[in-house]
This record gives sequence, C-alpha cells and structure tokens, in this order.
Amino acid sequence: MPKYKEKKFARKKARSNSHHKVGLSPGSLVHIGKVKTDKPVIDLIEYSKEQIIEKKDIGVQQAKSHLDTPMTTWIKVTGLHNTQMIGELGEAFGLHPLQLEDILNTAHRPKLDMVNQAIFMSMKVLYKPSPEVNISADQVSFVLRNNILISFHESELPLFDPLKIRLQNTAGRLRTKGPDYLFFALIDIAVDNYFEVIENTADLIDDIEDDLFEASNDNILMRIQQVKRELLFLKKNIFPLREALMSLIKTDSDLIKDDNQKYFMDVHDHIMQISDSIESSRELNSSLKDAYMSIISNKMNQVMKTLTIIATIFIPLTFVAGIYGMNFEYMPELSWRYGYFAVWGVMAGISVIMLMLFKKRKWL
Amino acid sequence: MPKYKEKKFARKKARSNSHHKVGLSPGSLVHIGKVKTDKPVIDLIEYSKEQIIEKKDIGVQQAKSHLDTPMTTWIKVTGLHNTQMIGELGEAFGLHPLQLEDILNTAHRPKLDMVNQAIFMSMKVLYKPSPEVNISADQVSFVLRNNILISFHESELPLFDPLKIRLQNTAGRLRTKGPDYLFFALIDIAVDNYFEVIENTADLIDDIEDDLFEASNDNILMRIQQVKRELLFLKKNIFPLREALMSLIKTDSDLIKDDNQKYFMDVHDHIMQISDSIESSRELNSSLKDAYMSIISNKMNQVMKTLTIIATIFIPLTFVAGIYGMNFEYMPELSWRYGYFAVWGVMAGISVIMLMLFKKRKWL
Amino acid sequence: MPKYKEKKFARKKARSNSHHKVGLSPGSLVHIGKVKTDKPVIDLIEYSKEQIIEKKDIGVQQAKSHLDTPMTTWIKVTGLHNTQMIGELGEAFGLHPLQLEDILNTAHRPKLDMVNQAIFMSMKVLYKPSPEVNISADQVSFVLRNNILISFHESELPLFDPLKIRLQNTAGRLRTKGPDYLFFALIDIAVDNYFEVIENTADLIDDIEDDLFEASNDNILMRIQQVKRELLFLKKNIFPLREALMSLIKTDSDLIKDDNQKYFMDVHDHIMQISDSIESSRELNSSLKDAYMSIISNKMNQVMKTLTIIATIFIPLTFVAGIYGMNFEYMPELSWRYGYFAVWGVMAGISVIMLMLFKKRKWL
Amino acid sequence: MPKYKEKKFARKKARSNSHHKVGLSPGSLVHIGKVKTDKPVIDLIEYSKEQIIEKKDIGVQQAKSHLDTPMTTWIKVTGLHNTQMIGELGEAFGLHPLQLEDILNTAHRPKLDMVNQAIFMSMKVLYKPSPEVNISADQVSFVLRNNILISFHESELPLFDPLKIRLQNTAGRLRTKGPDYLFFALIDIAVDNYFEVIENTADLIDDIEDDLFEASNDNILMRIQQVKRELLFLKKNIFPLREALMSLIKTDSDLIKDDNQKYFMDVHDHIMQISDSIESSRELNSSLKDAYMSIISNKMNQVMKTLTIIATIFIPLTFVAGIYGMNFEYMPELSWRYGYFAVWGVMAGISVIMLMLFKKRKWL
Amino acid sequence: MPKYKEKKFARKKARSNSHHKVGLSPGSLVHIGKVKTDKPVIDLIEYSKEQIIEKKDIGVQQAKSHLDTPMTTWIKVTGLHNTQMIGELGEAFGLHPLQLEDILNTAHRPKLDMVNQAIFMSMKVLYKPSPEVNISADQVSFVLRNNILISFHESELPLFDPLKIRLQNTAGRLRTKGPDYLFFALIDIAVDNYFEVIENTADLIDDIEDDLFEASNDNILMRIQQVKRELLFLKKNIFPLREALMSLIKTDSDLIKDDNQKYFMDVHDHIMQISDSIESSRELNSSLKDAYMSIISNKMNQVMKTLTIIATIFIPLTFVAGIYGMNFEYMPELSWRYGYFAVWGVMAGISVIMLMLFKKRKWL
Repeated sequence: MPKYKEKKFARKKARSNSHHKVGLSPGSLVHIGKVKTDKPVIDLIEYSKEQIIEKKDIGVQQAKSHLDTPMTTWIKVTGLHNTQMIGELGEAFGLHPLQLEDILNTAHRPKLDMVNQAIFMSMKVLYKPSPEVNISADQVSFVLRNNILISFHESELPLFDPLKIRLQNTAGRLRTKGPDYLFFALIDIAVDNYFEVIENTADLIDDIEDDLFEASNDNILMRIQQVKRELLFLKKNIFPLREALMSLIKTDSDLIKDDNQKYFMDVHDHIMQISDSIESSRELNSSLKDAYMSIISNKMNQVMKTLTIIATIFIPLTFVAGIYGMNFEYMPELSWRYGYFAVWGVMAGISVIMLMLFKKRKWL
Repeated sequence: MPKYKEKKFARKKARSNSHHKVGLSPGSLVHIGKVKTDKPVIDLIEYSKEQIIEKKDIGVQQAKSHLDTPMTTWIKVTGLHNTQMIGELGEAFGLHPLQLEDILNTAHRPKLDMVNQAIFMSMKVLYKPSPEVNISADQVSFVLRNNILISFHESELPLFDPLKIRLQNTAGRLRTKGPDYLFFALIDIAVDNYFEVIENTADLIDDIEDDLFEASNDNILMRIQQVKRELLFLKKNIFPLREALMSLIKTDSDLIKDDNQKYFMDVHDHIMQISDSIESSRELNSSLKDAYMSIISNKMNQVMKTLTIIATIFIPLTFVAGIYGMNFEYMPELSWRYGYFAVWGVMAGISVIMLMLFKKRKWL
Repeated sequence: MPKYKEKKFARKKARSNSHHKVGLSPGSLVHIGKVKTDKPVIDLIEYSKEQIIEKKDIGVQQAKSHLDTPMTTWIKVTGLHNTQMIGELGEAFGLHPLQLEDILNTAHRPKLDMVNQAIFMSMKVLYKPSPEVNISADQVSFVLRNNILISFHESELPLFDPLKIRLQNTAGRLRTKGPDYLFFALIDIAVDNYFEVIENTADLIDDIEDDLFEASNDNILMRIQQVKRELLFLKKNIFPLREALMSLIKTDSDLIKDDNQKYFMDVHDHIMQISDSIESSRELNSSLKDAYMSIISNKMNQVMKTLTIIATIFIPLTFVAGIYGMNFEYMPELSWRYGYFAVWGVMAGISVIMLMLFKKRKWL
Repeated sequence: MPKYKEKKFARKKARSNSHHKVGLSPGSLVHIGKVKTDKPVIDLIEYSKEQIIEKKDIGVQQAKSHLDTPMTTWIKVTGLHNTQMIGELGEAFGLHPLQLEDILNTAHRPKLDMVNQAIFMSMKVLYKPSPEVNISADQVSFVLRNNILISFHESELPLFDPLKIRLQNTAGRLRTKGPDYLFFALIDIAVDNYFEVIENTADLIDDIEDDLFEASNDNILMRIQQVKRELLFLKKNIFPLREALMSLIKTDSDLIKDDNQKYFMDVHDHIMQISDSIESSRELNSSLKDAYMSIISNKMNQVMKTLTIIATIFIPLTFVAGIYGMNFEYMPELSWRYGYFAVWGVMAGISVIMLMLFKKRKWL
Repeated sequence: MPKYKEKKFARKKARSNSHHKVGLSPGSLVHIGKVKTDKPVIDLIEYSKEQIIEKKDIGVQQAKSHLDTPMTTWIKVTGLHNTQMIGELGEAFGLHPLQLEDILNTAHRPKLDMVNQAIFMSMKVLYKPSPEVNISADQVSFVLRNNILISFHESELPLFDPLKIRLQNTAGRLRTKGPDYLFFALIDIAVDNYFEVIENTADLIDDIEDDLFEASNDNILMRIQQVKRELLFLKKNIFPLREALMSLIKTDSDLIKDDNQKYFMDVHDHIMQISDSIESSRELNSSLKDAYMSIISNKMNQVMKTLTIIATIFIPLTFVAGIYGMNFEYMPELSWRYGYFAVWGVMAGISVIMLMLFKKRKWL
C-alpha cells in the first residue's frame, strides 16, 4: 500500500513544516506552508464607474502610488514566499506585523480582525488538486482599507477569473459599488465553491454506501476513514468563518457600507447551510461504519450457518459408518442380509430429521 | 438492487444541479431545482371584511395595479422556472435581488430576513410524492409588505386549498385581520403538515422495530439507514425555522401587529414540539441499529451452540469407532465375545456425560 | 408476541389521532386525544380564610357568577371532549382561542404563556395506568386570573384529592394565601409525583442489570429498548417545564405575589433534580446495552473454546486411528506384537501435549 | 452473587424512601433519608479575636440566646431525624419553611438560595463508609445570617474537626474574619475532600485497565459498570455546586464581605477542576468498555485460528486415510509394494503445503 | 508488561501526592508536585530601551530593592519547593495568600485572576521529558504588577532562553514595550510550543493508523488508549486557557496597554486553533478504535471462511469413504469392477459442486 503511506508521509511533513518558529519574536515574517508559485506577483486593477485600469506584475512602490486615487483599487498579490516583498507591502499600506504574520502563515484557521482602521480577514479556497487527492486548501487573505482591497493568494487559482470579466462590465453592480462589495464578491466566489467540494464528499459517501450494500471489502473501512479526515478538514477550515462573518455583519466600521451588509448576511447564510451539510455528512459517514460492521457480522453468520448445517448433518452419518467399519469378530448386524441397506435407511432418516430441525429454526 | 441505485443516482443529480452558479454575480436570477410545473401562474385574491375578489393567471402588470388598494392582497405565484417573470415581479414590488435569488434557489435552508420594509421568509412544505419516496420538499417563500402578501410556490399543492375556502367565510377571522394573519395562516398549515410527516417516520421506526424482534434480515439495516437519511433531511429543513420564527416574534416591525404575535408564538411552539419528536426519533432509530447488532450476535451464538453440541458429542464417538476399525493383527478387544456391545456402552456413557456437562453450562 | 404488537398498534393509533386538523382555522376547538371520562364535569371550590364553599357539577353560567366575589375560586374542569362547553367557559372567563386550543390538545408539550392578563400553563400528570403499561400521561392545564384558578383535567385522578383535605384545614397556609399559592400547590403535587415515576424506571433498570449479569436472553434487549422509550417519553413531557417554570419565576406579573415566588423556585429545583435523574437513567440504560453485547460475546467465547478443545484433541487422534484402518497389503506396524498398544501410547502422548498447550494459553 | 444483589436491594430501598410525601403541604417537615446518628445534638462555638467559647449539646432556647451577641457564632446541628427540634430551631432563627424542608431532605441536589436576608446552601460531604462501598454522601446545609452560621449535618464526620483546632489558634485568619469566612472554610474542607474521592475512582479505573490488558474476565464488565454508577453519582452531587458557588460570588448581599469573595472564587476553581476530572474519568471508563470488547474479540480470534489450523490440516489427511480404509475388492494401490509409504508421503506433502499457506496468511 | 505497570504506578503516586492538605487553612503554603530542581533560584533582568542589567541567583531582599526603579523588571523564580522563600517573595511583592497557594499547587488547571491591582495567571509548559514518556507538564505562573513581571517556574526549561537573546537586541520590540509585552512574549513561546506537542500526538495517531491497516495486534489497542489519555491531558491543561486569555483581552485593567491587547488576541487565536486540533485528534483516535474492531472482525471472517470451505468439502467426502469402509457381508458396490473408481468420480463431483456453490456465494 505505498500510495497510502505516501499520503501519510506528506501529511506529517506538512505538519512538521507548519510551526518552526518557537522562540522567534511574534510578528517575525516567516512563510509557513509550501511554495506553490514560481515568483510572487503583484497585480493591480483600479476602477470607477467610468473607467477601469489593469496593471500586471508591478512593484511595491508602484502599488503604493495608487493609495490616494479616488478610484477603487484592488491589489492582488499571488505567492507568499517572498517575505521581504510582503514586509515592504505591509509597511507601504500600514499593515500590523501580526496581520503580516497571519498572511504568511497558511496553516492558520480562518480569522477576522479589525485594527488600525482596516479589516483583515483570512480564509481558505478549497479545490481538488489532483485525481488522487480530494481536497486541498489555499489561503486567501484580504485587507480592506479606505478604498483599497488587497488580496493575498498562495497560488494563482482560476477561481477568481470570472470576477475580472464581471469588472469589465460597465453596467455591473461591481463597478458602481466600492471595495467592500468587491471584498464580498471575492468571499462569495470562494464560498460558492465550497458547495461543490461538499457535494463531492457527499458523492463519495453515496459511493461507499452503494459498495457497502453490494459487496464489502477491507477497502471500505479505509475509504470511510478517509472521508472522515476530509470532513474534519472541511470543518476546521469552514466553521470558524461563521463567527468571522457574523462579526463582520455586526461591525459598525464605516468600511462596510450599510446597504452592503445584507450581502455579507447572504454569505453567512450560505456558510450556515454548508455547516449543516458537513454535519449531516459526518453523521452519515459514521453511520456507514456501523452498517459495515453489521454487514460483516451478517456475512459471518451466513458462513457459520453453512458450516454448521453441513457439519451437523455429516458428523453423525460418518459416525454410523465408522461403527460398521469396526473389526469386532462378533457384530451381528454385519451378517444380516439387508444390513447395509438398513444403514443407508438410518442415515437417510437422520438427515431428514436434521434438515427438518434446521427448517424449523429458520436456518435454511 | 436497481431501485436503490436509482435513488442514489437521483440524489447525486439533484445535488449537482443545486449549485451551478459559481462565479456568477450574486443576485443573478438563476432557478435552482427541478421544474415541477408546466407554466408559472400568478393568482390573486383581494379581500376585506366586506368583499373578496379572486383572479386567476394574471400578468405582472395586473398584479402591480393592486399595489395601492386599501384591501388585503394575496398574490400567489406557482412555478419558479420563468426567471424573467420573477425578475419583473421583483421590480414591480420592490424586492431586493438577493431575495429574488433566495426565492429561486430551492436548495436553500429556511430563512428569514427583514430588509427594505418587507419581511421575507422561505420555508419548506413536506409531502409524500409517491409510494416509493417517503418525503419530498417544496419551497414556499413569502414576502410581506404593507398590505400585500406574495407567496412563491414551487408547485401547485392541494395543501393550501382549505385556506381559500376559509377566506370565503365572511365571519371568519381571516377576513377581519390583515396580511400578517394570512401570512401566519399559511405557515401554520405547512407546520401542521409536518406533524403528519413526522408520524409517518415514527411509524416506519415502529415497523422496523417489529420486524427486528421477529426475524432479522439484511434489509433492516438498509431501512434504518434510509430512516436516518430522512430524519437528517427533516432536521435540515425544519430546525432553522425555530430561529426564523423567534426573530419574527421578537421583531418590532409594524408589519406584524402586536395582537397577532401570539399566533406566531403558537407556531413556534409547534416547531419546538416537532423538533423534540425528530430528536426522539433519531435516538430510537440509532438504538435500533444497536439492537439489530445484538440480535445478530445472539443468533450466531445459537448457531454456534448447536454446532458445538453435535460436534463435541460425535467427535469422540467417531474416534472410538475409528480405534476398532484399525487392522492390527493383535487387538485383544476385537475377539472378546461382547466387545462390540461393550463399545456401544462406552459410547452411550460418553454421550450422557457430555449432555450432562452441557446441561450444567446451560447450553441446552 | 401479540402483546408487544398490540402496544405498537396502540401507539400508532394514538399518533394518527393526534393531529387531524391540518387546514382548520387555528383556534378551532377540536379535542385531540382519547376520551377518558364519561361526562365533563365542572366543580367549584370557593374559599377565604374564614369560610369554604364546595359545589359539584355546576354549569358554565353558575361558574361565571363567581367571577367577582372577593374569595379565591378554584374551578376544576374534568373531561375535555365537550368542546362546546369548553368554548363557553372560554368566553365566560375571557380565554384566548389559542389557549382553548392548547387546553384541548392533549398531545402538546408542556407550555406557559402569559397573555390577556392571565397566566396559562399546561403540564402532564404521569401515572401507571395498568400493570402492563408503565407510564401514561394526562394533561392538566391551568388558567390563573385575578382571584380565580381554573384547572382542566383530562380525567379524574385521585392525585389531587389530598389538596381538598388540606383546603378544609382553616389554619393551613392554603387558606390564607391566594390563587397563586393554590396554583403552586397543584403543580407541586404533580411534580412530587414525577419522583415516583422516575424511581419506577430506575428500578426497572436495576432489574435488567440483575438479570443481565445472571443469565441473558433476548428479552433483555426488548426491555432495554422499552425503558429507552419510556425515558424519552419522560424527557419530552418534563424537560420543557424547566423553561416554563423559570419564566414564571422571572415574570413581573402581579398574578404571582412576590413572597410566593420562592415556592415556584422550589418546584423548579425539583424539576432540575428530576432532569438529572432522567439523564443518569438514560446513560445507565444505554450502558446496559453495551454490557449485554459484551456478555453475549463472552459467552460465545466460552462455547468456542469448548468446541476448539474437544475438536483439536480428537481430530489428530481420529486421524491416527484412520491410518491403521487402511487396508494396504504391506503395512509393517500392523503385524508388530504390541503395535496396537504403541498406538494407544502415541494417542495418549498427543492428548497430553495438547492439554498442556491449552493450559499454557489459559484456555482451560 | 449475593453481595451484588444486596447492594441493588439497598439502592432500591433508599430510592423508595426518598419521596414519601406526595400530597403533603410543601414545607411540611419530613425527614427524608436514613437516620445516621443516635440523637440529634446542637453544639455551639462562639468566638471573636479575643476569646472563644465552646458549648456542647445545648437546647434550642440556649442557642437562641446567642442571637444578639457581637461575637461570631457557629451553631452545629448533627442529626436530622428530630423534625420537631429542627422546626423549633427554624422558628428561633427565622428560617423559611422551604429551607427547613431542604435541610431535612437529604436526597436533594446541592442548592443555594438567598431569601429573608439569609444565605442558605446545602451540599454533600463524600466519604468511603466501608471497605465494600466506595462512596457515600452526607448532606451538610448551611444558613448564614448576620453574625451566625448554622450548619446541619446528617452525621458526625471527623472531616471538620481540624477546623475546631484552627479556631483555637488566636493568630489564625479564622478568628479575625467573620462568619462568612467560617462558611467558606467549611465548604473548602468538603471540596478538598472531593479530590480524594475522585482520586480513588481514578485509581479504580487504572486498576481495571491493568487487569484488562493482562487477563480479562466477566468481572471487569461489572466493575466498569460500577465505576460508571459512581461517576454519575459524583456528577450529580458535585456539578450543581458550580452554579451555586457562582451565584454566591456574584451576589451583592452584605453577608459575604467583598474581600472574602476571592476565597469563594478559589473554591469555585477547585470545583471546576474536579468537574474536569470527573469528565475525564467518565471518558476513560467508557473507553475501557470498548477496549474490553476488542480484547474479547481478539481472544476469540486466537481460539478460532488454532481450531482452523488443526482442523484444516487433519481433515484432508483423515480423508486420505479413509480412502484406503475402503473395502473395495479392486483397489490397485492397496497391493502396491510401497503404497503405504507413498500415502505417508502424500500426507506429509499436504501438511507442508497447508502450513506454508497459513504462514503466508500470517496465521502462524 | 512491567514498563506499563510502572507508568500506572507513577500516575497513582502523582495523584496521591497532589492533594494532601484537606483540613489545612486555605492559603497555607504547601508545595504540591514533584521537586524538579535542586535549589530554588531567583534571577532578575531589568531593562529599558537604553540599558539592560542581568543578575543571577539573588536573594528576596535584593529582588525587592528593584520594586521602585523606572525600568521594566523581570524576576524569574525557578523551583518551587522552598515554600518559605516563596512566602517571603509573596510578602515583599504583596501577593495574596491564595495566589501563593496557586503558584505552589502544580496540579491546578490554568487560571487567571485579577486582584490587588495585579494580574495573576498560571499555565502549563508542555514538553517531552524522555523517550518513553510523551508529554509532561511544568507549571509556569506569572504575576504582573506595575512595571514588574514575576514568573515562577517548576524547573529550568531551555524553552524561554531565546527570549533572553531577543532582550539583548536593543532595537527589538521587547525593549521598547513594557512588562505586559514581556508577559505576552512568555505566554506566546509556551503556546507556540503547544503546536509541536499536538503535532507529535497527531504523528502518533498516523502511525497507529498505518500499523492498523497493515497488521493488527494487541498493542494497538494499548497505544490508542495511551493517545486517548494524552489528549485528555492536553485538553485539561490547554482548554481553560481560552477563557483565561479572553478575560485578559476584555479586561479594562491598566496593566495591559491598549495597543498590546491585540497580541493577546493573537495568542487566543492560536489557542483556538490548538483546541480545534485536539478535538480533531480525539475524533480520529476514537474512530481508529472502531476501525480496529472492524479489522479484527474482518480477519475472523477470513479465518472462518477458510475453515468452512475446507471442512465442508472434506466432511462429505470422508463420509463417502467411511461408507465403503464398512464391513457388511453383503455390500454389492464393493465387488463391482470399477466401484473404486466410481467412488473417486462421485467424490470429484461433490467437490466441484461445492466449489461452484462457494464461488456463487463469493466466498472464494
């Protein structure tokens, strides 16, 4: 089972990577996680109702120069392993060292904080990285300031591309509303994507259930355990969003305009529905394990019954045959004319009685 | 088991249907769910204490013209797949795009929100669609405005028909009270209907319990699993109503008159009782699985005991017969006069001792 | 198992009875439940510190005439199936239609509401109706107004009789305190009675435990399942009282005098203790099921060991005997002088080795 | 198993004793519980910083005469079955009838109430009454008034004796602080004692775990069940103290001086720690049951494997021997010169193949 | 299994050590726990932005002399068994007797209290003491006053050494911020260390899972039980920190400066993440036990099937052979020319039919 072991090994390595900074000063910039892109890239889109400007792969200073324009600015940072660049960005846009630490720590659970008149939120984008691995998580962090939204991505995912197309649409709501609506739109895409992931897992559970009631083998247990791990993974990465979004909704910060609050409420409702689904799936999955146990017991029962029926019928017959195989000098039955046929009769009688008994006990 | 698989397939398809809108602008009008009616229909009933007017299959513009009448207006929309019509209705009656999205998304959990001086609530009507399928859910959404109640139904269900008859009754409470009471009356009917669904499930559990203690077979496990799924389905579609109704009761909106609040309180009490029943059923159902396991073990025990008794009695006897079937030249017992009968005696002795031993151990 | 089935049938019928009113106007007076008395009866006791008047089987109008006397009035209605009479009573004493509906619906969970300057509370009286059935519940509803307490009973239970005797006692606290204390006294009696019911169930659990460790049979499983049902029944009928009493204690209504509040607090404490006991019993009961499973496994183990020991000793011996039962022309051992006895020796040797092996493995 | 049954019987009797007062007026003085002392005794200790007076076995009237002294007075009542004396005491010190009822009802859960400018609290002292019984509970109730603390004890326990010695110490904190500190000191002793009880139970669990992994027998199940009962008992008697102490800490009553509040906070912390330990123990205990089941299954597996190996090796061999024991006239092998030895060879071959197969499947 | 027993013994001893103070005056200074250092040592570091002074192994009086300097003072006390010295320190720095008691009681759960204008917090440092033992906990207590932080350590752990190096860095944040930031830095190091401990435990679970699906033996159960104990230990020592830190964050004490509050928030987030991990690990671990049970059942099933197949094939064959081994005088088949070969044919037929039957039932 080398593939299985490989996964384990990867999991362990990921874990041991995730916190090698005990004793470092808090707020020290250390990238925790795998390097998923070649080179960190800063992209920028600046838009108002009238116009839209898109710049690719710019430097920190160029990004900073857009700080005071009246347009809405979306700075998209892809790739986190250049800690120096992140540090400079943080300085340029006045981010708190602890926020920078959270942006770089991709092992962190989703969180929200509001300090220094900025809203910081980090969450996970879930996707299926390869046919063998079901779920992988990339961290996305957002910093919402005055009229700027900075988003930090672990890797370039095609997930957010439709948003760029919607931004081109002059008549779209995105263009008329500010950076808080852009912020919402990004979260909304990530959360909508969760539904697909949950559905995949629900499909897996259905597949296991099918296989279970048809023919059970060892593998099923491993698959159930695997689904359990995945559901725990989903729970860990999604459930904290509930609180995060709730405090975003209840905030009295000016950064979220009042008439946009209901959009965040809508995302919160989606998260609640996803939470329900995860809990349902967890219950179904764990009940599959019980069902599996029952089915094994049931099968064993079948095997036992067959053995018992055959053995209990033939054991007495064999005994009878053994009796008349004895070599005693004086055994009167042996010389009877129809002794042999009488024995056959006795044996047939025993068999019939046995079978009737089994019938009565409903073993047949 | 082709029927079982069919169900699975349907379930998967339903899921994969339910969210095909990642990347779309939030509030985009997409109908999520199965098309359950031929053609969307708008019906209208307008009533006051004195008179009642009923119009069937009218257009959006005609519906809009009833916006400013002093009478209470109930606009009933059946069928949701004509997104354009729903969009026009939304514009005509000032609904928020997110509310329209929720009306069209039949995969959503029950929810309540109060924006733009309107109360929006969506819930499920549960019914048994066919002899094979136990529970199906249709979404019903309500928008309560000034003196208008708009209800959106996935399909035409006979459930709400008695209400129309009660509306004809000039002396009835419905005619004297406003749209909030009509709103309550519709919810009340749907919730009363839940009781029946729960009772059906409780009956299923009772049936399983009966079959369990009489004669157990594989099928039982599948039925328990099925009931588990149904109870999870009920929980998912009913539990969120508790909060929804509670915030309806606690609202200080003018749309719910003070002396009607107690009616919503009454519905809330019913939901609490239904929740209790669902939880009880879940416990009973999961305890049935344990009982089933025990019964299987018990039966196996019976089978084992029979095998053991027969085998342990005959194995030594057969050995004795084998001994005297040996062909040694010098075996003194063989030439004894009553050797053969002595062997029979020994065998009888062994059997009796064995049986007494079993008796003592309470295996017989 | 016809008795068991009968119970099931009764349970199903009770359920299907309990909600036949979907579509009816809320507040429609429909009696839900079994008719437990011949004829509804209104009794009346009017008392002050100085005097006490008792009237039996009076009419609604006569009852109404006591509305304005300065004395404390207890109107006791036994039997709920005359919905017309209940309706008249409701009108005479100004009860809300929803309260009347709750009074008549005996399938409802305990509840409290305070509307129209009256306190309404409904709860269950638990008792053992017959030797076969352990627990049955009768609904008692109370309406507390100015100086009147109306109690509605499903049937005539001897439980509340001691109260009438205490009322005769001129020096008793009941006579000096108002209708709120009478209200408390009635609840207190019902709650004190719960203790007995819980104790019965705890005794049942103890009995099962005894039988379990002595000799286990199928029946035990059914009894555990039965106790589980009963505990769920108790939970459903008792737990909601906690909130109900708590809001009674915290109310600022004048109907409960300040110095009587501690009496309700005391009842609340009792309910808390009963809740603890129910939860403990539930845990013990479910742990009995696990113990039962273990014991079955244990027994199977015993049976298996016996089979294994006997079979593994005799199977090799029988083989040896079989060897020398072969009819080969040239088998040197057969003609040895002491061949037969040598074989006996070999067999004894095998047996001893086997037994020692079993001893070492602690199977003997 | 007569000892086990005895315990059960005692438990049932204790329960049936515990509530024989349905129908009695609330506040009626009835002693509920076993009589644990010969004769109720009132002791009194009166102390100030300067002096200390101790009086033993005084009457109610003499106790009352200490009501107005400026010194701190501790009245210690041991033995509760003289309800008349308790009633007189209640009258003398102005206790509420419900408090007296709670003092006498030793089956009650821990509680706190604050009425009539007095703090009433009842809790349990846990101890090991005899080598066979692990835990027993004695109720201790406290009434704290102005400068008097009355404590009611079911029986004379040596637990509180060290306090008397500490009271003799003129320089001790006890002498300088008022009755609230004395109240705390008594609770603190009882709670410190809980630790010992918990540790005993934890030791029991460790013992079971040891025995479990060494050699399992039926007894283990009974011991696990016994520990479960004990932990439920502890939970029932300790957990309610958390709330009780919390409301004591949050009270704004003058009876608890501000700078003594932190002492009660400290006791509360201890209770929290004890609660943690109880929950841990409960988890460990229930996981032992699972482990026990696994071990039984494991052993069964061993037994089965042995049987299978021996049977599957010898069954084919015996068959071969049987073949050549047949008496057909024409069986060519029988007359072969080395037929007999060839058969031995075949048999050896079969055995070796079988053993290699088992080796491969890791059954050996 | 002597090592296992040793551990048990150690655990019991640790427990019985942990509370030998029933009856003692609360606040009596008794050291509870093992003595882990030779000699208690007081170290002192005093620093401001400009300079830093370090003194090792000073006396209580010398420590006291730093009370009024304007610099930030960190007094580090290592070793707790010299209760007299701790008592003097307490007096010198105005600690409350109950705080001293908590400092000395290393069996206590993490706690926070704020009295006498000082913040007291005690928590655990977790580490792996030896290759055999996975987790051990040392208590660290902190007292934060004006510009002094006193930390009490059970033993000298290298964990906090990096902090001293960071203190030397004149440009570091530590030097510019006050004692509250130092307080945070110490907690942060301890909490960062928790991650490693959790990861170790997660690795253990992965190892068990690997071994489980490869080859199962008794040991696995013991390891699962061991991990369960460890996770309970972690939960007990870490979960209470959540509340403690939360009340630290919400405090309005001046001791925690407003712009340092977010650092404590950050630690709180880490604790939340650790809590999530512990709960996930607990679930995974307990699901391993179920998986183990299933695997055992599965294996038993395999063994049973092999036995059944071999036995049910050979038992009828042996019976046939037995028939023709009988010695009846008149058995016509025996004298048939090809009787012997016909029997072989019959046997082959039986075998083939049997094998086909097994094939159909999917046992092969």
